[in-house]
Amino acid sequence: MKSYAFGIDLGGTTVKIGLFDPQGTILEKWEIPTDKSNNGANVLSDIAASVLGKMKEKGIGADQVEGVGIDVPGPVLNETVVNRCVNIGWGVIDVGKELSEKLGGLTVKVGNDANVAALGEMWKGGGQGHQNVVMATLGTGVGGGIILNGKIVPGTFGAAGEIGHMCMNPNETAVCGCGKKGHLEQYASATGITRMANDYLASYTGESSLKNIADPSAKDIFDAAKAGDQAALDLVDKLGDMLGRAFALISCVVDPEVYVIGGGVSKAGQILIDVTEKYFKKYAFHASENAKITLATLGNDAGIYGAVRQVL
Amino acid sequence: MKSYAFGIDLGGTTVKIGLFDPQGTILEKWEIPTDKSNNGANVLSDIAASVLGKMKEKGIGADQVEGVGIDVPGPVLNETVVNRCVNIGWGVIDVGKELSEKLGGLTVKVGNDANVAALGEMWKGGGQGHQNVVMATLGTGVGGGIILNGKIVPGTFGAAGEIGHMCMNPNETAVCGCGKKGHLEQYASATGITRMANDYLASYTGESSLKNIADPSAKDIFDAAKAGDQAALDLVDKLGDMLGRAFALISCVVDPEVYVIGGGVSKAGQILIDVTEKYFKKYAFHASENAKITLATLGNDAGIYGAVRQVL
Repeated sequence: MKSYAFGIDLGGTTVKIGLFDPQGTILEKWEIPTDKSNNGANVLSDIAASVLGKMKEKGIGADQVEGVGIDVPGPVLNETVVNRCVNIGWGVIDVGKELSEKLGGLTVKVGNDANVAALGEMWKGGGQGHQNVVMATLGTGVGGGIILNGKIVPGTFGAAGEIGHMCMNPNETAVCGCGKKGHLEQYASATGITRMANDYLASYTGESSLKNIADPSAKDIFDAAKAGDQAALDLVDKLGDMLGRAFALISCVVDPEVYVIGGGVSKAGQILIDVTEKYFKKYAFHASENAKITLATLGNDAGIYGAVRQVL
Repeated sequence: MKSYAFGIDLGGTTVKIGLFDPQGTILEKWEIPTDKSNNGANVLSDIAASVLGKMKEKGIGADQVEGVGIDVPGPVLNETVVNRCVNIGWGVIDVGKELSEKLGGLTVKVGNDANVAALGEMWKGGGQGHQNVVMATLGTGVGGGIILNGKIVPGTFGAAGEIGHMCMNPNETAVCGCGKKGHLEQYASATGITRMANDYLASYTGESSLKNIADPSAKDIFDAAKAGDQAALDLVDKLGDMLGRAFALISCVVDPEVYVIGGGVSKAGQILIDVTEKYFKKYAFHASENAKITLATLGNDAGIYGAVRQVL
């Protein structure tokens, strides 16, 4: 094992880069902007220049670098080929090969961002100490990552862990961002929670502080629930029912030891864990009932931790 | 690689045993009864005696045997410890260790029967040529097995692949054999199909040949559907909807390349594949939509093929 490795989290606005030691301690982290001009043609050169610049600055030789792990917001095949990143402007591109060439032959491994975040949380976050971990990221959408035996499950078509598109309600009439109907993301993402709240409050006859808020956010709802608002408590219960059932379905497939919930919605804290666990136990096959449900702890750093883990 | 290996499929009535070459050709296969007396205390000794007897008969030395793979009808941890086999009478028992001792130290690997059947179908059956395979066995119950990168996914609590207990309908009032409600097994097993048929026919006002049959079986229903009976076609459609949606859910977790359908219900043939595929495409996330759905081909031999594959 060499002395250094880099973890890179490529987002649509910024690229986060971390310099790590082999035990996964961050020695330094910084950001560069994501240049989306010209369909993202400069992104890999910018990243390579930043990494090589840091190596020069610190006097780190190529022979001291174990490798470079990177995550991207799109499906990845064979830890190297990215199959369309809409947010960056990329089509099909062999990121592993191209970035390695720009880095003078350093080992590069590439993963999908949701999968890599799950790997990061397994290694240094909410899933620490476990090898079979499923992460659900509840943000604008719902992302997921499946880790078995400490490794990302990428899927045949790069779609493993796409738990946001599990069809939870075949009778749904509203359409998911992907074009199909009744998907988890329509109920458990930040936007889905607001949509559910608007629907519920429209026919809710009791008093509720949420009625004074146009398009209540997940935070509004959780805050009101913590203050005892009944409509808010009902909505939290609906979310827990949906998420707990989704986890119970996942347990029938891969039976993980722990579920880690991250993303903006998870800032609600323990109340979200408690309600999800309640319904998970209701729906789960008895053998899997004792899987843990916990909060993510790495926040925005999950990506760089998971990215570097790919090469360590 | 040595010249021989044994694959053993332990069922509640008989033990099937196969002698294989390292390429997976069956050289000989035979059965012995499963002695369930005294909580199955003699089962492993009977198996060992049969294997050692065959080795003596054929003049095969222990140094020519790569190993012995066995499957059991219960959850298995770490490829060795069985955690209760209700059908055999066993509690917690280290089958790998005990059988190896009775076999003079031969390598023994143990798997759950549904998982091992999936491995067999991947290797020599309907999933041949693929490394990421999910098998659904539609029999008295619904079993399943998940194969990723050519290996069984056992799960943390031995419950990976328990797809029969996926909660497909949270509003179901009837109870599954496991004590919870709305599970796939309640709709897609042989008994579940009959139950659905009775419910549907009770309120079906049209003509149907099925109305003349008390408790129509899956075979009765598929035969009537092939003959154009509308009620039977409706029931086949309901089954395909349920199974196709279950597969779409599974694809969001592990994204396999192929689904293999086995068990008694799969004798219906292509009509079952066609209707499952129709609904799979309806519900699946677009990236996974092209996964194949196919019939199992090994029948009752899937167990011994998969069992021996564990040691080859």
